[in-house]
Amino acid sequence: MRITVVFRYVTSLLFKLSLFFLIPAFYSLFTGDGLFFDYLYPILLCLSVFLVGIQFKKEELNIKESILSVVLIWFLFPALSALLYMETGAIPNFFDAYFESVSGFTTTGASILTDIESLPKSVLLWRSLTHWIGGIGFVVFSLSILPAFGTGGAQLMRFEASKAVEEKVLPKVKKVARAILIVYLSLTILEIVLLKLCGLSFYEAVNHTFATVATGGFSTKNGSVGEFNSFSVEMVITIFMILGSINLSLYYRAFKRKSLKSFFSYYEVKTYLIIIFLSTLFVTFMLFEDGVYSDVVTAFRYGFFQVVTAASTTGFASTDYSTWPSSVLALLMILALIGATAGSTAGGLKQFRFIVMIKTMYRELYKTAHPTLVYRVALGNRLLDVSVLNTIWAFISLYFITTIIFGFIISLSGYDLITSFSASIACITSLGPGLGKVGPAGNFSFFSDFDKFLLSLEMILGRLEIFSILTLLLPSFWKD
Amino acid sequence: MRITVVFRYVTSLLFKLSLFFLIPAFYSLFTGDGLFFDYLYPILLCLSVFLVGIQFKKEELNIKESILSVVLIWFLFPALSALLYMETGAIPNFFDAYFESVSGFTTTGASILTDIESLPKSVLLWRSLTHWIGGIGFVVFSLSILPAFGTGGAQLMRFEASKAVEEKVLPKVKKVARAILIVYLSLTILEIVLLKLCGLSFYEAVNHTFATVATGGFSTKNGSVGEFNSFSVEMVITIFMILGSINLSLYYRAFKRKSLKSFFSYYEVKTYLIIIFLSTLFVTFMLFEDGVYSDVVTAFRYGFFQVVTAASTTGFASTDYSTWPSSVLALLMILALIGATAGSTAGGLKQFRFIVMIKTMYRELYKTAHPTLVYRVALGNRLLDVSVLNTIWAFISLYFITTIIFGFIISLSGYDLITSFSASIACITSLGPGLGKVGPAGNFSFFSDFDKFLLSLEMILGRLEIFSILTLLLPSFWKD
Ligand SMILES: [K+]
Ligand SMILES: [K+]
Repeated sequence: MRITVVFRYVTSLLFKLSLFFLIPAFYSLFTGDGLFFDYLYPILLCLSVFLVGIQFKKEELNIKESILSVVLIWFLFPALSALLYMETGAIPNFFDAYFESVSGFTTTGASILTDIESLPKSVLLWRSLTHWIGGIGFVVFSLSILPAFGTGGAQLMRFEASKAVEEKVLPKVKKVARAILIVYLSLTILEIVLLKLCGLSFYEAVNHTFATVATGGFSTKNGSVGEFNSFSVEMVITIFMILGSINLSLYYRAFKRKSLKSFFSYYEVKTYLIIIFLSTLFVTFMLFEDGVYSDVVTAFRYGFFQVVTAASTTGFASTDYSTWPSSVLALLMILALIGATAGSTAGGLKQFRFIVMIKTMYRELYKTAHPTLVYRVALGNRLLDVSVLNTIWAFISLYFITTIIFGFIISLSGYDLITSFSASIACITSLGPGLGKVGPAGNFSFFSDFDKFLLSLEMILGRLEIFSILTLLLPSFWKD
Repeated sequence: MRITVVFRYVTSLLFKLSLFFLIPAFYSLFTGDGLFFDYLYPILLCLSVFLVGIQFKKEELNIKESILSVVLIWFLFPALSALLYMETGAIPNFFDAYFESVSGFTTTGASILTDIESLPKSVLLWRSLTHWIGGIGFVVFSLSILPAFGTGGAQLMRFEASKAVEEKVLPKVKKVARAILIVYLSLTILEIVLLKLCGLSFYEAVNHTFATVATGGFSTKNGSVGEFNSFSVEMVITIFMILGSINLSLYYRAFKRKSLKSFFSYYEVKTYLIIIFLSTLFVTFMLFEDGVYSDVVTAFRYGFFQVVTAASTTGFASTDYSTWPSSVLALLMILALIGATAGSTAGGLKQFRFIVMIKTMYRELYKTAHPTLVYRVALGNRLLDVSVLNTIWAFISLYFITTIIFGFIISLSGYDLITSFSASIACITSLGPGLGKVGPAGNFSFFSDFDKFLLSLEMILGRLEIFSILTLLLPSFWKD
């Protein structure tokens, strides 16, 4: 572990990332809210550390150094953003500000704000922007660092990514990253235009687009998307939540092949869309049957939106769904736990792991009846060997155990079990809102500073797929 | 699949089992409650079917036929017991009676009775006896049928069992069963004597002993064990809940070797006792700290009892714990999910699977930092190969998914999530009581017939380790 190499890399990347503060800075000039210089301080801070950093020799990072760097950046950049929130007076308490920042970058969208609309517009723009930066950052992380972990089917990720650009991936991450960025930008521009056409102001269109394509869920409105009360806005956002939660490299592949066939026939996409379809049918039926909405169309409108927002782990709300039937609420949490496809900005376990889980169980069942037959688990057109399966199982299990442990720790503060465990699910899956006191009509402001910090940690753990952080705790990680 | 062979085997075993009805029958004569003949009807019914059965040739069962027979018996014998409940007028509704019977034989101890004490004493004796029969039946099932499943670490079970008697197991099941029965009877007699010494009547001592050593949890009192309000009774029951939830073959081994060393050094026992110790410390602290009890000794008294009753999946209550801090309630559910040691009457995932889960996660973590090193998972002094690990993972996952599916289905009837999901956990783990409406002060009477049937099914699924039933659903199971 060459600490100086890591230091140089981290400070340099932090400085580059800090340039994003220029966007709200100029918007601040435009609106004249007098916060311009507040946005420059973080940049200057990063610049000064950067100037120290470049004194050290630039060298290629090895794998351990890459992991350490990435983890450091996911902890440090939110701290910088937290300083901004405190500085501008938008969020005075550090733990609140750090929570809100982590929630932004991890595209969780859980908020400690009780009155969002009272914040300066440039600050809210920055808040939405943290989603957008974090979203693309996560996808690049998935393609560059995650493959280093045997855990959680990273082999699959590497495989998929390499297929997408028909090249070996690790040395070519930059090329993939560029392709992905083009897709991400295209989705962003397209949604802004469509939301504008649906009647939103440019400002609202931009903010909600950032929160949608990154499957983040921050809104500039206290009542989230529901406040626009517009069917067309909801439909656009629903469609882009789906688009944003699908492996971005598939778009690039479809574009290169000029065919959508491979896009829709991809195993994760297929399962994902089927799950959304069936869940929407179910929720629409339940809402209508239970008398929550008296006509089927309205039941579909709200049901479809909420199913997609949960399955894509976005976490917008088009209505206060906390009074919906408990089976629907359970389904929403389950959808978030399953999550969307790998290689997207979305969280949760991811479809491929869910598919592996179902297939392995079937395999074991089959083996009982046919002990002598060899039955293997395939994903797409690739056979998985037992050691890959094992790493996937270990991940799934660690994911649930982490969720349970954090839920349990939160419950120590005396909150009811629904609040505690749904908060934990909402943070690890990057869903955002949960049930109970952290439901759509609530927020995370009532937690203690300690709990807020724990939940911030859980969001980062979930985003970095747990193992990348736990590795750092092994004494042997630090030995050469 | 030779149906006639299965028929002969099942009818013959049902008849033998039906002879247990003689016990409450004679007790009924003794108390003069006029129900004597009611107990004879099920025996006569079984006898008549048995007489048809013995017309067929007796042949050795193959593995598929054994699985089918066992599953049939676990579904049919509770039906017979349900007929008795209906016949005696104790529980008039079939679904109620079937639920209560299944709950008895699976040693779950969930009840639909609202006033237990209003039932005839001979019926309550039968109800406790179902625990005792089901408990020993399950242990024998674990040793004879479960090893046929690759799933769920059955290899381990076979290994353990064979070590216990220093012989190959499958052909020697009877020998093991006899050893186990001796242990089970010894524990039973010892506890009856001790409870009698603590001041319980012989009747109460017998009933509560049946429910304890089988980790069942039915009481003859509306207020469960708490109604005796006796510290010594609680301590005896606590200790026997622990004893009953430890692999019965370990006692036999310890006896043969005249040494308790191997007993306490056994990996499952060690982890199990450590978990109980730490949980008791935690719960005692929380109950005292939270002001539920104003002195530490009382907090320990109720905390220790409730921790053991959850960890051993017995489900007695020494007090109405539903108002305890939510973190404690969460812990109790987690303890039940982990469960006790394999080869005992207890339910849950079992300690060895929990240990494998933790160890595999650590292995995956370690592999990340040392990709080239081979690190294998060991259990006791045996290395597990990846395919064994896979079957264990598949089981764990299926266990949680089954729990979630049943919780979800129950929530469709409109119950809150705590009630729905804790009922599901209570039934699959064979814990018995859950939280919310099915908490210690509640019962399962308010569920619809359909839900009661579903929960009965879940209890059997949990008891027969899921795969043995799911296998029957494979079309290929039925082909030769
Ligand atoms: K989100
Ligand atoms: K029980």
